[in-house]
Amino acid sequence: MTIGTIHGVGLGPGAADLMSVRADRLVRGARHLAYFRKAGRPGHARRIVEGLLRPDVVEFPMEYPVTTEIAVTDPAYNDWLSGFYADCTRHLAILAGQGEDVVVLCEGDPFFYGSFMHLHARLRGIAPVAVVPGVTGMSGAWTASDLPITWGDDVLTIATATLPEEELIRRIRDTDALVVMKIGRHLPKLRRAVAAAGREDTAWLVEQAAMPGQRVTRLIEAEAVVPYFSILLIHGQGRRP
Amino acid sequence: MTIGTIHGVGLGPGAADLMSVRADRLVRGARHLAYFRKAGRPGHARRIVEGLLRPDVVEFPMEYPVTTEIAVTDPAYNDWLSGFYADCTRHLAILAGQGEDVVVLCEGDPFFYGSFMHLHARLRGIAPVAVVPGVTGMSGAWTASDLPITWGDDVLTIATATLPEEELIRRIRDTDALVVMKIGRHLPKLRRAVAAAGREDTAWLVEQAAMPGQRVTRLIEAEAVVPYFSILLIHGQGRRP
Repeated sequence: MTIGTIHGVGLGPGAADLMSVRADRLVRGARHLAYFRKAGRPGHARRIVEGLLRPDVVEFPMEYPVTTEIAVTDPAYNDWLSGFYADCTRHLAILAGQGEDVVVLCEGDPFFYGSFMHLHARLRGIAPVAVVPGVTGMSGAWTASDLPITWGDDVLTIATATLPEEELIRRIRDTDALVVMKIGRHLPKLRRAVAAAGREDTAWLVEQAAMPGQRVTRLIEAEAVVPYFSILLIHGQGRRP
Repeated sequence: MTIGTIHGVGLGPGAADLMSVRADRLVRGARHLAYFRKAGRPGHARRIVEGLLRPDVVEFPMEYPVTTEIAVTDPAYNDWLSGFYADCTRHLAILAGQGEDVVVLCEGDPFFYGSFMHLHARLRGIAPVAVVPGVTGMSGAWTASDLPITWGDDVLTIATATLPEEELIRRIRDTDALVVMKIGRHLPKLRRAVAAAGREDTAWLVEQAAMPGQRVTRLIEAEAVVPYFSILLIHGQGRRP
């Protein structure tokens, strides 16, 4: 019997028709489908593929034991997550060992700040893994803003709002174009950092890019708390003939 | 008569099945197809869609009057390119005015260092423009490297090899993860900069990601000149439970 392949499939920013032709083919053909979600939620990745699946698909929701309830600096956070990823890997490895291919749904691009990377690293030497790149959430965001993110020789910095405030200020000052991910409850800190860096006038917040609830707002008009998947943009102003 | 729409369609990094379902549908249905290319070449974007087009498609190749023959700092470079983009825009605007939709092929993602941005800016107020985001060339590159580009709170810096050497060194020193685009004949300078920043051991060069000639090499083993579409990667080493 041939060992099965674990496919890490990028779904893109949210609209089903923004996944690649390759991803679409794998998702529609999948007998085994795995995806991460917060316990008690349908799961964002799973929602993107609603209506595309085989009637006999076998689903394996991988439910995070913790998400934002424990601080990432708490050692317990790391242990719990590590055990969780090991459990998921074991399940996928068993399926692969039985000759089954598995499609693992990944929001955006699998190798860009994604959870799938933690399975990928653990599956090395255990089962073959194939990764299908996807349109990133940030591409969805700058497309929603209807403005290019980089021109000519612009430097683009991509950072997470989880960084300390001083570090955010430094990064925002020292770049042409900027993308900030993982905002959520860090929004007030991020707003202060953008203001301190003197770039409030050109900062945009994009919520739910490429989805029905898509919203593009100037940062100064944003509400105090936004969804975790919100993205901050400062567009580059580089050379343009 | 309704005015036509100009579609800026991201094709992704190179493999035809890495374009989105939406892009694939637009490309296959296009009566009018436009794309940039260097004079005398088939055009990289055009090659990606070979075999997908309607038999009655009308093609409009937009041939760069200059590419690397004139220095970007030469004022003539700017004038020539500006006139070229204006001519292309005029042609697209005429088609839109006749009620025709036009699909403009864009390598990677249209709003990420692409030529389409120069048409998009000029078409504002003249014809409706719709942009379809694509998988970036850099996503294709880190997927080819089989390693995630960013983990946890990693900062990712994206720069072009056209920057001055000292600025490249500073940027390479001051980031967790790195992507460098537009390498081509700047490779020797880039190699010196990576070495000066002390990161030669972890730097990878990806040529022709997601295409038949795909090649992933350690930077220190790279040849002196590489294709313009080569991408340098230094992977982040951030938090991973």
